[in-house]
Amino acid sequence: MSEFDLIRTYFAGLGARRTDVVLGVGDDCALLDLGADQWLAVSLDTLVAGVHFLADCDPEALGHKALAVGLSDLAAMGARPAWATLALTLPGADPAWVAAFAHGLGRLAKAHGVALVGGDTTRGPLAITVQVHGLVAPGQAIRRAGARPGDQVWVSGHLGDAGLALRRIQAGAPVSEPLRRRLERPDPRVAIGLRLRGLAHAMIDVSDGLAADLGHILEASGVGASVELAALPLSPDVAEALANGAGWDLPLAAGDDYELCFTAPAAHSGRIEAVALEARCPLTRIGCVTSEPGLRASQPDGALWPIARSGYDHFRDEA
Amino acid sequence: MSEFDLIRTYFAGLGARRTDVVLGVGDDCALLDLGADQWLAVSLDTLVAGVHFLADCDPEALGHKALAVGLSDLAAMGARPAWATLALTLPGADPAWVAAFAHGLGRLAKAHGVALVGGDTTRGPLAITVQVHGLVAPGQAIRRAGARPGDQVWVSGHLGDAGLALRRIQAGAPVSEPLRRRLERPDPRVAIGLRLRGLAHAMIDVSDGLAADLGHILEASGVGASVELAALPLSPDVAEALANGAGWDLPLAAGDDYELCFTAPAAHSGRIEAVALEARCPLTRIGCVTSEPGLRASQPDGALWPIARSGYDHFRDEA
Repeated sequence: MSEFDLIRTYFAGLGARRTDVVLGVGDDCALLDLGADQWLAVSLDTLVAGVHFLADCDPEALGHKALAVGLSDLAAMGARPAWATLALTLPGADPAWVAAFAHGLGRLAKAHGVALVGGDTTRGPLAITVQVHGLVAPGQAIRRAGARPGDQVWVSGHLGDAGLALRRIQAGAPVSEPLRRRLERPDPRVAIGLRLRGLAHAMIDVSDGLAADLGHILEASGVGASVELAALPLSPDVAEALANGAGWDLPLAAGDDYELCFTAPAAHSGRIEAVALEARCPLTRIGCVTSEPGLRASQPDGALWPIARSGYDHFRDEA
Repeated sequence: MSEFDLIRTYFAGLGARRTDVVLGVGDDCALLDLGADQWLAVSLDTLVAGVHFLADCDPEALGHKALAVGLSDLAAMGARPAWATLALTLPGADPAWVAAFAHGLGRLAKAHGVALVGGDTTRGPLAITVQVHGLVAPGQAIRRAGARPGDQVWVSGHLGDAGLALRRIQAGAPVSEPLRRRLERPDPRVAIGLRLRGLAHAMIDVSDGLAADLGHILEASGVGASVELAALPLSPDVAEALANGAGWDLPLAAGDDYELCFTAPAAHSGRIEAVALEARCPLTRIGCVTSEPGLRASQPDGALWPIARSGYDHFRDEA
């Protein structure tokens, strides 16, 4: 039973039914209607030592990443970040560690106009849960459900960098600083998410790997997609790794990319290209949405990439 | 360095300054102004196996308690519960355990009109973080700061039951079901908190022990208090334990009570007694607020109870 099955089976729809819940469990964020002129978008994520990061990693980078993964969820809804809360569980009180962690988190928060408004600090195995809160005008939130046959499939930035950095660190191989940053200090695509309101039909952030996360869009929208692997945006490092025998799993299923994957009608491609220029981040067309369900990824030789093992699963993967 | 020192030093004021943050880190809840006719009150709490509960405890009770501690924070602000999010970290995927946990959480959520709107399930050492979201009209939230000299100090329910249950369980001694319920399935005092709007000057929920939590009210309000220990509301079990030599630490500093402690002008005492009848929960006057700072607790023999070790501290206490 995978992480997602667990959530869906036991936690979807739990508790009272409320008319102010616009969107509940199952998208990048929940959407809540307080009667204001903006909906509240919330998302929480946990990072556990030994599963999502190494216990001896740089605490400043960890503070950055703990917030970045949540901001990436807000980006994927087209929501503007506002506030964050932090639950920090620590094996002991190490002031230098906490100061560095707070510095990393605080700097990214400030860069995105986010105030840290609450927290709980407890003793226990090292783990971090951050909840982010953002605002989006009613009707402007970009959900997973919404992709339509004929839409183009787009992805921001490059895929596979974080996965390659992790593989190299685990193998004791050297890692360039830019590649390490992509793993340890991902840059949430908030500005792109905001600019895609009114342009994208469906969006998700790529945290478990493109195959799994695009799969969530397709499932939620009741459609399929064809993707050309030759079109995937790859950094020189990942392109080199693929040339040296790394499989397509690297850009498709290694996870931790924190890029945005979205679908949009072809008529918007010009405006989407303008967004890429404004945000100084590449946006790449990688395929199209089909009415036939399922994800088909064509390799450069024409063969289909096997999708069976799609995405990072915290319960199956022995990290 | 205690839990509270850590939070204050490194996390208070982190990130951007925003005018929509009515109240940030340092009270039972943060208060956020979305421009609606109600403020949003949020609070998150983490429970860690081996620190806050035993790993082999009843998962259904754990689901109840994980939400109850947050609802207790909303109660302490006079906020009406609305939504919750859940971050669940599990050593493995045990469907029976998750089903029981979800049942306990879901039943309490339904009873308080709370919808579970989001979650993250990850692999790792057993821990639970729940964020609760409530609504309170501007100006009606009851903060810690607000106690005034001359106020009476009140507490709901009984103190020390959960602490006594834990001591007996740890000693392998028999525990009555009512006493065990007070530890494992605390009843958040939401209805009382709502009814105290406009009556209480300051309020907090008693999670770390009355001495520590009343101390937070006094510190935030810049006042002191005198408490008569003979006036503390005690269940027959705790009264018997005290008669048999248990110290005042049990009702004052054992923690996990999830009762409300509040201060109110004497003129409201009649209306407060009516609240107790309506909510079918005792509300007891235990002392009064003084302009002289500090907490003075008089024992029945007239001696002062030593406040030095006040409250449960997750970093000092080797649970």
